[in-house]
Parts: sequence; structure tokens; C-alpha cells
Amino acid sequence: MAPVVDLGFANVDTHRALRKGFPEVIFASGKTPEQVVKIAAALRKREGQVLITRAGPDHGRLVKRRFKGAVYHETARCVTIQKKPLPKREGIIAVISAGTSDLPVAEEAAVTADVMGNRVERLYDVGVAGLHRLLAHYTQIETASVLIVVAGMEGALPSVVAGLVRRPVIAVPTSIGYGANFHGLAALLGMLTSCGSGVTVVNIDNGFGAAYAASQILALANEL
Amino acid sequence: MAPVVDLGFANVDTHRALRKGFPEVIFASGKTPEQVVKIAAALRKREGQVLITRAGPDHGRLVKRRFKGAVYHETARCVTIQKKPLPKREGIIAVISAGTSDLPVAEEAAVTADVMGNRVERLYDVGVAGLHRLLAHYTQIETASVLIVVAGMEGALPSVVAGLVRRPVIAVPTSIGYGANFHGLAALLGMLTSCGSGVTVVNIDNGFGAAYAASQILALANEL
Amino acid sequence: MAPVVDLGFANVDTHRALRKGFPEVIFASGKTPEQVVKIAAALRKREGQVLITRAGPDHGRLVKRRFKGAVYHETARCVTIQKKPLPKREGIIAVISAGTSDLPVAEEAAVTADVMGNRVERLYDVGVAGLHRLLAHYTQIETASVLIVVAGMEGALPSVVAGLVRRPVIAVPTSIGYGANFHGLAALLGMLTSCGSGVTVVNIDNGFGAAYAASQILALANEL
Amino acid sequence: MAPVVDLGFANVDTHRALRKGFPEVIFASGKTPEQVVKIAAALRKREGQVLITRAGPDHGRLVKRRFKGAVYHETARCVTIQKKPLPKREGIIAVISAGTSDLPVAEEAAVTADVMGNRVERLYDVGVAGLHRLLAHYTQIETASVLIVVAGMEGALPSVVAGLVRRPVIAVPTSIGYGANFHGLAALLGMLTSCGSGVTVVNIDNGFGAAYAASQILALANEL
Amino acid sequence: MAPVVDLGFANVDTHRALRKGFPEVIFASGKTPEQVVKIAAALRKREGQVLITRAGPDHGRLVKRRFKGAVYHETARCVTIQKKPLPKREGIIAVISAGTSDLPVAEEAAVTADVMGNRVERLYDVGVAGLHRLLAHYTQIETASVLIVVAGMEGALPSVVAGLVRRPVIAVPTSIGYGANFHGLAALLGMLTSCGSGVTVVNIDNGFGAAYAASQILALANEL
Amino acid sequence: MAPVVDLGFANVDTHRALRKGFPEVIFASGKTPEQVVKIAAALRKREGQVLITRAGPDHGRLVKRRFKGAVYHETARCVTIQKKPLPKREGIIAVISAGTSDLPVAEEAAVTADVMGNRVERLYDVGVAGLHRLLAHYTQIETASVLIVVAGMEGALPSVVAGLVRRPVIAVPTSIGYGANFHGLAALLGMLTSCGSGVTVVNIDNGFGAAYAASQILALANEL
Amino acid sequence: MAPVVDLGFANVDTHRALRKGFPEVIFASGKTPEQVVKIAAALRKREGQVLITRAGPDHGRLVKRRFKGAVYHETARCVTIQKKPLPKREGIIAVISAGTSDLPVAEEAAVTADVMGNRVERLYDVGVAGLHRLLAHYTQIETASVLIVVAGMEGALPSVVAGLVRRPVIAVPTSIGYGANFHGLAALLGMLTSCGSGVTVVNIDNGFGAAYAASQILALANEL
Amino acid sequence: MAPVVDLGFANVDTHRALRKGFPEVIFASGKTPEQVVKIAAALRKREGQVLITRAGPDHGRLVKRRFKGAVYHETARCVTIQKKPLPKREGIIAVISAGTSDLPVAEEAAVTADVMGNRVERLYDVGVAGLHRLLAHYTQIETASVLIVVAGMEGALPSVVAGLVRRPVIAVPTSIGYGANFHGLAALLGMLTSCGSGVTVVNIDNGFGAAYAASQILALANEL
Repeated sequence: MAPVVDLGFANVDTHRALRKGFPEVIFASGKTPEQVVKIAAALRKREGQVLITRAGPDHGRLVKRRFKGAVYHETARCVTIQKKPLPKREGIIAVISAGTSDLPVAEEAAVTADVMGNRVERLYDVGVAGLHRLLAHYTQIETASVLIVVAGMEGALPSVVAGLVRRPVIAVPTSIGYGANFHGLAALLGMLTSCGSGVTVVNIDNGFGAAYAASQILALANEL
Repeated sequence: MAPVVDLGFANVDTHRALRKGFPEVIFASGKTPEQVVKIAAALRKREGQVLITRAGPDHGRLVKRRFKGAVYHETARCVTIQKKPLPKREGIIAVISAGTSDLPVAEEAAVTADVMGNRVERLYDVGVAGLHRLLAHYTQIETASVLIVVAGMEGALPSVVAGLVRRPVIAVPTSIGYGANFHGLAALLGMLTSCGSGVTVVNIDNGFGAAYAASQILALANEL
Repeated sequence: MAPVVDLGFANVDTHRALRKGFPEVIFASGKTPEQVVKIAAALRKREGQVLITRAGPDHGRLVKRRFKGAVYHETARCVTIQKKPLPKREGIIAVISAGTSDLPVAEEAAVTADVMGNRVERLYDVGVAGLHRLLAHYTQIETASVLIVVAGMEGALPSVVAGLVRRPVIAVPTSIGYGANFHGLAALLGMLTSCGSGVTVVNIDNGFGAAYAASQILALANEL
Repeated sequence: MAPVVDLGFANVDTHRALRKGFPEVIFASGKTPEQVVKIAAALRKREGQVLITRAGPDHGRLVKRRFKGAVYHETARCVTIQKKPLPKREGIIAVISAGTSDLPVAEEAAVTADVMGNRVERLYDVGVAGLHRLLAHYTQIETASVLIVVAGMEGALPSVVAGLVRRPVIAVPTSIGYGANFHGLAALLGMLTSCGSGVTVVNIDNGFGAAYAASQILALANEL
Repeated sequence: MAPVVDLGFANVDTHRALRKGFPEVIFASGKTPEQVVKIAAALRKREGQVLITRAGPDHGRLVKRRFKGAVYHETARCVTIQKKPLPKREGIIAVISAGTSDLPVAEEAAVTADVMGNRVERLYDVGVAGLHRLLAHYTQIETASVLIVVAGMEGALPSVVAGLVRRPVIAVPTSIGYGANFHGLAALLGMLTSCGSGVTVVNIDNGFGAAYAASQILALANEL
Repeated sequence: MAPVVDLGFANVDTHRALRKGFPEVIFASGKTPEQVVKIAAALRKREGQVLITRAGPDHGRLVKRRFKGAVYHETARCVTIQKKPLPKREGIIAVISAGTSDLPVAEEAAVTADVMGNRVERLYDVGVAGLHRLLAHYTQIETASVLIVVAGMEGALPSVVAGLVRRPVIAVPTSIGYGANFHGLAALLGMLTSCGSGVTVVNIDNGFGAAYAASQILALANEL
Repeated sequence: MAPVVDLGFANVDTHRALRKGFPEVIFASGKTPEQVVKIAAALRKREGQVLITRAGPDHGRLVKRRFKGAVYHETARCVTIQKKPLPKREGIIAVISAGTSDLPVAEEAAVTADVMGNRVERLYDVGVAGLHRLLAHYTQIETASVLIVVAGMEGALPSVVAGLVRRPVIAVPTSIGYGANFHGLAALLGMLTSCGSGVTVVNIDNGFGAAYAASQILALANEL
Repeated sequence: MAPVVDLGFANVDTHRALRKGFPEVIFASGKTPEQVVKIAAALRKREGQVLITRAGPDHGRLVKRRFKGAVYHETARCVTIQKKPLPKREGIIAVISAGTSDLPVAEEAAVTADVMGNRVERLYDVGVAGLHRLLAHYTQIETASVLIVVAGMEGALPSVVAGLVRRPVIAVPTSIGYGANFHGLAALLGMLTSCGSGVTVVNIDNGFGAAYAASQILALANEL
């Protein structure tokens, strides 16, 4: 069987689950709901899990109508179509966010991590302006296996979290903020130059990418 | 007496002490040691305090040779010539720095605040990568009247400090760091977009400006 | 009583008035009117003053409907809910703006300073293109305790004002302008590199932050 | 025993090994050889492993003279002082570089990963201009546990590598290149926007940070 | 006959076909449908081929109504009015795109190359995240005379393609992506600093320009 | 006589005095002293005035040795070789500078304006931090025909000067400053977005260009 | 009579005609039609000429309804209210534009220059892609007193024009273009670094500013 | 024979001549003279042509000492080692430069094109500030097969040249200029947004890349 399904407007990579451990994920932004449905259909024929990210309400509505059991995660702007959820791996991915406005990005990370077969703990609105909110959850933070830290504005939270734990910290800058934030640039530069050793960074607003990386780490930890 | 001394290459503003509460300060960078000495002489004839910032060793050497009692503060790159130190105001200016490499900027702030008649407390190398180093000094931080917080890299320290205190926090980004730091831009943007309410910011590496503002605040508090 | 109220989507920091001298302020932008109302309710149960910034007409309308005595400040895009106004501190905060288009930012500063318990004087549309407009108000400028200077375009006004007074000047760049203004970047860089000693700067359009800092300064001056 | 050693110019964080799993690492750039030696002495008294990064020849020479067994890794610009090497963890960290000029960054990663107790495989000068050089090492690439991919110029290598493997890929942009490379910015932006799912990124030229993160991942995998 | 038709709002350059080998092309964006029709009429009177780029549906509709035989290429946002198609030159222009979202730019290139008298082969959605999709078309790629490679995000595809072929590669960055992509800047810088020798680059989203250059190359090859 | 002298490494445009009213000017930076001398010789054979800008001491020394009457203006980094000075035009060009460090740029403007046949008045170190220094010269400023205003840092001086006069103001940003000045960018953006109507701007540090434009204006005023 | 009319939201500078030679000009963007009308009324009471720039259709409609004889210049987005047109000065201001899309900016310049009492000649769509279109108007170009050159994209036209004439050239970059144009930045940087001596530059899309400067030049030429 | 020679520090790609039509080229910058010699030796054993770019005098000296017949092209900073020059292809590559300071980049292009087997014509110092210098060479320009146009500052020359010819124009921005040139950024953006159809662009100062592309074009034209 050829490892590609040619839909004319897209070459669906059906070899990816084999190579990468999870099927191709559909990035809905910039595609019509119909295109998304066609790619989803091609994937669903072969795979147990379909994940669609950056899905607007229109994408969500059409996909739900076409696929029984499809779920639209509104805040996360994701759709999941699962024949049967993957069994959960050992270990926990903590998704920590600095502010209320970072929720869409944090939820994209949480939904992605979950559908990829991981246990997820959410810890939201614990930014550094009130350290006691963060430190109140010290045990949860310390026992997580991988930490995804989502923050906009100056993006200081990953540095503080990384100072507290020995586990991998993946920082996600968000475009939340205004003025000198320059659409997430301030948070991005802040995280890249973090004084916290071992912090790695993904693109602005890329909750999906952070969860994907966290899941790869946990998969390794379960399979090594 | 005319409020300006025309030296040909410079118009020394001898009216400034009256207007601003402290005599004109000499920015040595880009001036020859001789030029600095001439401006210093014009000021010293009229003023009790002369402050020279961004003074290299050459400036330091010549000024010390010409003016008895001149002191060269090496780390701070400042020279002070004081007929008699100003009496100290009530209240304390805390100068807090994130790392060892921020010392020149922090010392420029400390020396400036001191010569302008303020009590200064130094708290160095207490960055957010090890929060316990900062929190160990909680009382000192909480009782300061004004806080100058100096940090390079991602510049997260002012946000954390501002979360702990009710007093004015002046953030100084430094050019310490490399790569995506872009010569202090990361720290600058981080501080401008800080989630800590009431943080104000000065130019990159501008320890002098931060101390000047802090001194103005303390002067107001003593004179209101 | 726990110092945090967990609303699910937000961790309201009810400890902040104690730590910072004023309750948590609600940044409405990016939150639904319902979310804003819920946070406001949690705060109002405990605090005498509630301040909501960046509130659009929708936020304004719903908050006014739910809370008796709520006031929507249209130009400032703020809502205030005051059980009883705070007594006014000694000293005056002057809010000075360069042009008519800077009004929303200047008013955000003025409303914030007022609700935090300060006397405010407004001095609008006195940019440097007609110096006589500014100099006509010299006495008012000279006797202010703290000066908030709001300007877009090239942001030259804070430098000129700082040259005239001995009191703290807080500069607020606005995004007013076009072309090489780059959404406030020109004014921001201009203010950061101001030749006026002691000027500190807040984020573009951040009238709230400037007033918060000014209020902290006046609080210190009243409490020292 | 207090968790900090105060050297006057530095607050050595002796609590870090406990918290982070590895002692504080000395960033030599911007410190004098004497300062580096003093911090190294404070650490060595308590720890089995001392790592100094960004060490110039001067730092290297003095440290080697003072500490028996110190090794200066010239290309990596690192010094290691090991009482006894840590036992090697299970799993392999592959360090892959695109070009010959990326060697200093790649070696910094390799030396760091090694001293932190990991097995390291080096795969250098296999950039995408000649894909066969990369594909010739397919088995090595596929069996690595974590992959550090170092590249300058357009930074395309991590995308290609991430397309081939299911394990975590950490991308390190280098400042190699000229013109529109803008000191590593092109590679940095390229890696952040990589189409390869799960790629995380560290600061430009930050081989140390990539290895630190990789080691944390492998530690988790060994300890879960 | 004067080589310019003055329409008041535009100076149509009717000398261009002579000088450049193809008539002036109408850039519709920023012009009203009526203006476009007037320029098209002036050109059609003299030329066999009229090409309109960046044409929205409104432009498309009006032009089709006015000119018999006009074709609106929706994805490409182009209109063509051909009295008789030009005979096809020897050689093939391959248009290769990395992702589905790059289609509008790729189609602009393909339509332009076609109307200018070239044979075009399309190869879409073959980005480097799944190299096998690209390598499956190795023969097609190797036998093309000129290759236009269209990619957004990190823009790595031209480097990989250029490593495989001896023919000219013209890279077109697209504005596809988000965050650190900065509207195509990441792809643009990546392509300019490509390690693939001989890659030349056109403006972001400029499929037209790439095809124009490719056609000039093939014209030379047919006429030398 | 051909309007070009081909020196192999340079095509000296001997037609320029005719077309532009002043002979080609030699930009010495990046040329060897020998190259400068050769171009100067070619010009001097035909022209009464030779102007060399951005001349280092080496250029200055060699040109003075070779051409009798050549003058090296050290601060301005210019060399002039005049057979006979041009007669002075009616009207005055005022060169106004904000600070002492702007002198090299201001002097480049003054020397250029002088050699091109204009009366020049210098007004230095009158920045906006002390408005009285500027206003003291109000009559001189008001009676100038054209004003060249040179400023670094935030570049506020042209806005203030333009508010006072009805004559053309040409603003020259200088690279003086540090940090957020970004090598003159802050001053440049500030001048471009100046609220002073009619301010035009030249490149950073381009004193020559400002004087050239001012001289063209005065020439027009004398010739109309 | 006080030189300022305080409208509450604006301080109308009625002293400006005296100081600058032309009354204050109203920048309508960001003001409501009612605000514009009020300022216009205050000015019209005292001045013979009122100019409103950046006026949208709403501003235009209301102003025309309120003031008899008001003219809305649609392409230029300007409104003029003239009691009696100013007598025309000697000399000609040529407004030259590169492309059809630059018309709004060119027309803003032309209308401004006209209302300020100057003769204007328009020369549109003569960009460097077809040099013969420009050279066909050589006499017109050569005899103009001042030249305003408007161009988007790469902004090359001012360099070419400046190479042909001895009169002042004022360059106006426009935001026309896409991709690497970055909203006029490409044209702006190009004009600032122009190899044409004596070119001065105004802000992106600032046709008004260019005409204001040109008018000042011509006024000087008529009054010297 | 394996298509790679592993030198430890470099993987020499000996398959490249087969794939790309010319052997791997050595980029000397950042390599020691010894490293360059070793790679050159590995290549020379298999290939008739060795080209080393960005070679400093040290590289030049050592390579000349080791390889008989090696030539160091000083201005171009290239070394060539040719067993026997390649036969010249039909057609001409014109290398056109705007100014004297662009010579090193123009010569890098010329030497590269020559060693790759092409006829080269040089046309230097013909920038747009004096159009007659360019137009004097109209025939040469019009008859060239491919045109490499090298320019710094505002980079306007490629637009003008592209307006005159029907053949491919490859634009090379140089870092020549100062201030708002930002190390070649102005020229780069100008060329990318050129109004001249069909202009393609290479990296700043990348004369080599332009010549490589030009040679590929001429090779196609000779082989199709």
C-alpha cells in the first residue's frame, strides 16, 4: 500500500504513524471545512486517532456532522475523532499557564497531549505576579514528568518553574499582550534567553507542538 | 550670572541644579579625558558634587590627577568629586541584580544613588533561577523605599520582585546575554511587558537613569 | 481564608491588596463580559474598589447592569465600582498629553490614578509643535508631585517636560501615528533614549501602568 | 548548611544539584579567570562534577593550573573537573551538525551531555545540501534516544531529521552565516517555524542548553 | 505610435513586449475593477496575451463580463485573456510546493508560466516533513529545466531540492505560518541563506515573479 | 569631451557639476588613500572645488601631501581642495546640534555647506534637556534661511525647532546613544514621525546630505 | 487675543499662521467628524485657509454640509475650506509618482501644495521599470523648482530623478507593495540610503509633509 | 568509491560534481588555512577545478604554497586551482556594479562565473546617480545572456537594468552603505520588492551565489 494518499490538493502522509508514532495531524487554518473533512476521512480509514488543530467553529461543525464521535474542543480549537482512546502512558504532563488569556494555547496543549495517550494535569493562571499561587502547587509541579509552561507578556514563568524542577520544561510563548509585546515576540525572546537551564521553546501560540514534544519524551521514557 | 558656561565644544548648563535638584552629570563616553576635565572644572567651581558616568580608565586617571579627592569607581565606571557628601535622605534605595555579569550596571546605579544623597542597599546575584536566594532577603526587599532591579537575559526578576512589594520598582535591562538576547532587547521587551503592576523601565544598561529617578522619588517623599 | 479564589478559568489573587496596597485589577481585553463580571463579583465581595481596564462597550454595559454604582468611563475604556472612594493623598499627579488622539491613554491614566486615591490634574494637547501651549502651564507643571507624560509620534514631550522639573516623570508612548511610527515603536524608543535625566517608561498605550507607578510613588511620599 | 555560598561578587547556588539533578554550571564569558577559579573551588568542595562553559584559553589555562584533573575542551570552549565521571545512563544522545563551522556549538553540546552522564554519538557535517550524507547514517539516527541538531544558515536540518524519527529533536540554531542570516536569526526563526512536529528550540549557539535538556529527558527515561 | 497609452490614472507601457518579450502585466490589487478593465482594454488592442494578477472575485467577474474568452483562475487569483495561446517552448518548468496552504502562490506561478508560453508540471504538498513524498518524484524533479519551489514556514524545501539537481532553482517564500514566521520573514531569510548553491529568491508570495524569471530563463535557452 | 573619466576602479562623473550644480563628491570610506588621490586628481583638473567626505587621518595626510592648499577638517572628517572659494550666496544656513557628541556630524554639514558657497552659522549643544540654552538663541534661529538640526538619542530637537520657525528644517539623526537607540534608529524614527510640519530627514549621520539639500534650497532661492 | 482656543478635547494653536506661515492643519484620522468640524470652525473664524488631511468620506460629508465652499478631494482624502485662494508663488512644485497605486499619497501632496499657494504639476505612473516614460518628461522635470517624488515598492525613483536635476528632491515612500516591503519600510530605507545627493525624506505615505516642506522652500525662494 | 571523504572535521561531498555539475566549493571563512588545504587536497585529487571563496590573505598564501598553479584573486577574495580551465560556454554573463565599493562582491561573481566555464563582461561603477554612465553601455547590456547586478545603498540599479532587457537579472545586494542601510538590509529589501519583473535575488554580498545561478542558467541554455 502506497504510503501517501493523493487528494489532489493534499498528499496525506499515511506513513507517518509508523515513522513518528502518531498519525499526521490536520492543521485546519487556511483550509476549507470540506478540505478538512476529506483529509480526515482519508486518515480515519487507516488510523484510530484523528487530531485537527486550529479548527474554527465552521470546521468543528462540519466535522462533527460527518464523523460520529467527533468532539469539538472549543477553547482549544481542536477536533478529535477517536475510534478508541489510546491507553495512557506512565508519567504526567503538567500544563501550566500564566494567565487566563493563555487558555486557548494551554488547552491546545492539553487536548493534544491527552489524545496522544498521556495523563495531563492542568494548572492555570499562576503567573509570577503572585508567586504564592504558583508555590501553592509545588508538589504537583515537582512530581510532573514533563512540564509545558504557557505564558504571554514577558514570559517569565518558565524561568521560575525551571528553577524549581529537575524535569524537562517546554516553554510556549503566547501572543497575549500589547504594545512592546509585538505579538508574542517579547515572550519568545524571553524564553529563548531564559536563565533556567534546560528550557526548550516552541513557536508562539504553538500549544500543539509543545504537547507533541512532551508526548515524545514520555513515549521514550515508557519505551526505553 | 548667565546660566550657561560656553566651553566652545560644550554648553555647560549651570542652571540645572536649581531646576532639577542636582547639577549636570557628565557622560564621559565619546569625550576625550581633556574635555571631561574641562567640563568637570566648570561644574566644580559652582557645585558641591560632580558625577561623571561611563568613564573609562583614561578618564578616571586624568580626573583623579587633576582634582584632589576625586574617586574612580572601577566597576561602576564612574568618577565622583565631592566637596562634602550630601546629607542622606530618609528611606532606602535597594539595588537588586540578577547575575554577576550585571554588576557594572548595578554599581552605576548604586554609586549614582549614593552621591545624590541616598542610603543604598545592594543585593546581588539573586536571579529567578534559584528563587530561595531572593526569598532569603525578603525583609530587606519589603522594607526598601524604592527598588532598582537590574537584569539581563530574559529580564524576569523585576516581575517577581514587583509581585512581592508595594513600593516603586524601576527595572534596568542589561545587555548581558547572547543570541536571541539581541544586546538587551529581550530583557527590555520583557520588562516593558511585565505582568507586575507599576514597573517602570529605563534604557538598556542605564543604571544611572534608574538611580536618578529613584533619587527623585525619595526627594519627593522627603520634601512633600 | 485562602488568598486565592479559584473560578476555574481564573485564580483571583485576593491577597494583592495586602501585598501591593491595591486590589487586583481586571484586564478586560480578551475576556468575555461574563468572565469579567464573575471576577469583579469575587473582588467586590472583599474589596472597596474594583477597577476594570481595557473594557469595551459590551463589558461596560454588562458590568453596569450587574453592579449598582458601577461607572463606565468611555474615553478611558475603564469601569470603576467603588463602595466609597478612597480618601485623597497629599500631592498631585499631573497627566499631560501631547495630542488629541492620545486622550484614551491619558484618560486611562487619569481614571486609574483617581480611583487609587490621588488628586489628578489634566493638561491635554500641549505637544512640542507649539511650545507656548506647554509653557503657558509652567506653574501647574512645576508644582505637580509626579508627572505622567503621554505622547505618540516621536514622543518628544517627556524630554522637554523632564528638562523643566525636579519631580519624577513617567513617560507613556502611544501607538498614535503612522508609517515609521510602527505602532508606537518610534515613541517608545524615543522615550527610552530620552536626554532628560530620570525619565522612566512604561509599555506602549499603558496609561494604567503609569498611573499605578505614580500612585505608588505618592503613597510612599505620604507614608515615609 | 546554607544552600548558598556568598563570594561577594557571586552567590553560588549549592542547592542546585539537589533541585535540578546537576550542580550549578559556570558561564565563564564576562568573568575573569580568577572569578571562575573561585566559583569552581566553591563548587568542587561540594560536588563531584564541575562544568565551565564559554571558557576562553585564559580561563582554561588558569583552571587547569589550579585543579588537578581539569580538562580543557578547546573546540567546545569548556572545562570539566570530574572527581569521578558519572555512570552512563541507558540510551544515546546523538549530536548532529549541518556544517564544519557549527563544530564549536556541537562540541559544547557533546561535552555537556557527556559530563552529565550520557552516552553521546557525534554525526557532523551532514547538512541538507547533500542528503546522501545524512541518509547514509539512517540507522544511527533512528536508534538515538534524543537528537540534538545543530545548524546555521537556513537551519533546515532539524526539519528533515524530525521527519525521519519518533524521538525528541532539540534544534540549536548557530550564528554561522552572513548577510540575511543576521547572526543566527534566520536559523532561529526557521527552527521555530519548522514543519517537523515536536521540534523544540534553544537559544542561538546554545549547545549547552540543548544538552542539558537532552540529559533531563534521558534522566526521566531512566528514572520513571 | 507612441510607446505609452495615457489613461489619466495610468501610463500603459505598450513598449514593454518589445523590450521585455512579454506585454505589461496588470497588478489588480489596489485598483478598482473598472481601472483594471480599462488597462486591459488598452493592452488587448495591441497584444495577444493579457495577464492580470492578484485579481479578487470582483475583478474576475467584471473582466470576464467584458472580454470574451477571459478566464478567471480562482486559486491563482489571476485572469488571462488570450487571443491565441503562445506556442510552448522546449523545456519544462516544475512548480513544487511544500504544503496545501501554499497553493495560491504555486498556482500564480503555474498560470503565469503557462500563459507566457511554457510547459508546466505541478508537484504539490511534498514538504520535507515526509521526505519520501518528495523523493518519490525524483525523476520528474531531475528532468525539469527550471524549478520553482514554493514554501512557507521555515522554507527548507528549496535547499533540499537544490541539493538534488543541476538546474536553476527559484525559491518563493510564502506568508503561510504563524508566530515567529512573521508573515513570511522566516521563510524569506531561510531561502536567502540557503546552503543550496545557486538558489535565487523572489519576494514573499511572489509566484508571478518566480514564473516570469523562469520563463526568461527558458526563453534564453530556446533562443541562444 | 566625454562626461566620464574611467580610472579602471571608478567612473568619475565629470558631467555632474553641469547637471547638479556641484562636482561629484568623493566618499573616502572604503577607498584606499591612493584611490582617493586619483579620483581627486581627475576632478581637480576640471573643477574649482573638490570635496572629500568620511576621510580618515590617512586619507587626510596623503591628500594634503599631494595637493597644495588642501585642508583637512579633522572633526568633520572632510578634505577640501579649493582653487578659489565660491562666492557666498545670500541667506544663512544654521547648523544646530543637540549635544557635544553630535559634533562630527554637525561639522560635516557645516564644512559641506561652506565649500558649496553658503554662509554658515553654528549653534552647538543646545538640546531640549535645557530649553533655555536653545531659546537664548531665538533670533539667530528665526532669521536663518534653512536650518540643519543634528541630534542623537531621541532626536527631539528638530520637532522643537520646527515649531518655532517658518523656514525649511532638515533633520539629521546621529548614531549617538546606546541601548534602545540601536545605532541611531531611535532618532531616525523620531524625526520621521515628528509632529513638526515640514521637517525632512536624511540618513543617520549624514551631515553631508543635509548640507547638500540645504545648499540646493539656497541656490534655488538665489536663482529663482 | 490668546494664541490658543481651548475646545476641551483640543488646544487649537491660532498662533501658528504667524509663526509658521500657514494655519494649523487638522489631521482627521482618529477624530470624529464632529471634533473635526469644531476645530475647523475655530480655525475658520480666524483664517482664510483651512486644510483637513486624512479625511474619510464621513469627515468629508459632514464638513461639506457645515461649511459652504468646502471641497472634498476624494483621492487625496483632504478637505479644503478657502475664503479666497492664496495668490500663487513664483516657481513650480512637481509631484512625480512611480505607480498608479501611489495616487492617494501623490494627490495629498498636490492638494496641500496647491492650497498653500503654489503652482503644481503632476507627473504620474512614471516608475523606473520603463525609463522612457520618465525621460519623455525631461524638460518638465528639469524646470521644476522643487520635486516631490512619491514611490512604493523599492523606492528607486527619487534616486533616478535626483541624478537628473539640480533642484531639491523630497522623497515620499508609500506603503504600496507586499511581502518584504513591510508596509513601506523597504521604500523608506531605500530613499534614506539613496545614492542621489541632496534627497531628503519624509514619513511613509506622508504626502502632506512633503508638500509642506516644498512650500516652505518656495516661500523662502520668493521672500529671500 | 564512496561519494564522501571523511576528514574528521568535514565530510567532503565528492558526489557533487555529478549531481550539480560542478565540484563542492570551499567556503574558507571560519576555517583555518590548514583545514582549507586539506579539503582542497581531497577535492583536487578527483576534480579538475577547485574554487575557494571568502579566502583571506592567510588562506591565499598557504594554498598557493601547497598547490602549484593556484591563483589568489585578491579583490575577489577567491583562490582557484585549475588543472585545465573549462571550455567556455556560448553566451555572456555581464557583471554590473553600482559603485566602486561594490567591487569585492562583483569580482567574487566574476571569478566564480569564469572558473565555472563562462565568458564574463565587467561593467563597474555605473550606478543610477548618473544614468548616462549606464546608458552609454546599452548595447553591452542588451546583448548579455544573463546579468548579475551588484549594488549597495538603496539597491536601485537592478530595477533600472531589468527595465531595459529581456534576459534574466540576478540582483546582489551589498553591505555597502551606512546608517539606515543596516548592513545591506535596505538594498536587500529594495531588490526583493523591485518593480522590475523577473528580478531574482541572492543573499547580501553573495557574489558567488549569483554567479553559480547564472552559470546554471547558461549551462541549461547550452544543453537544452
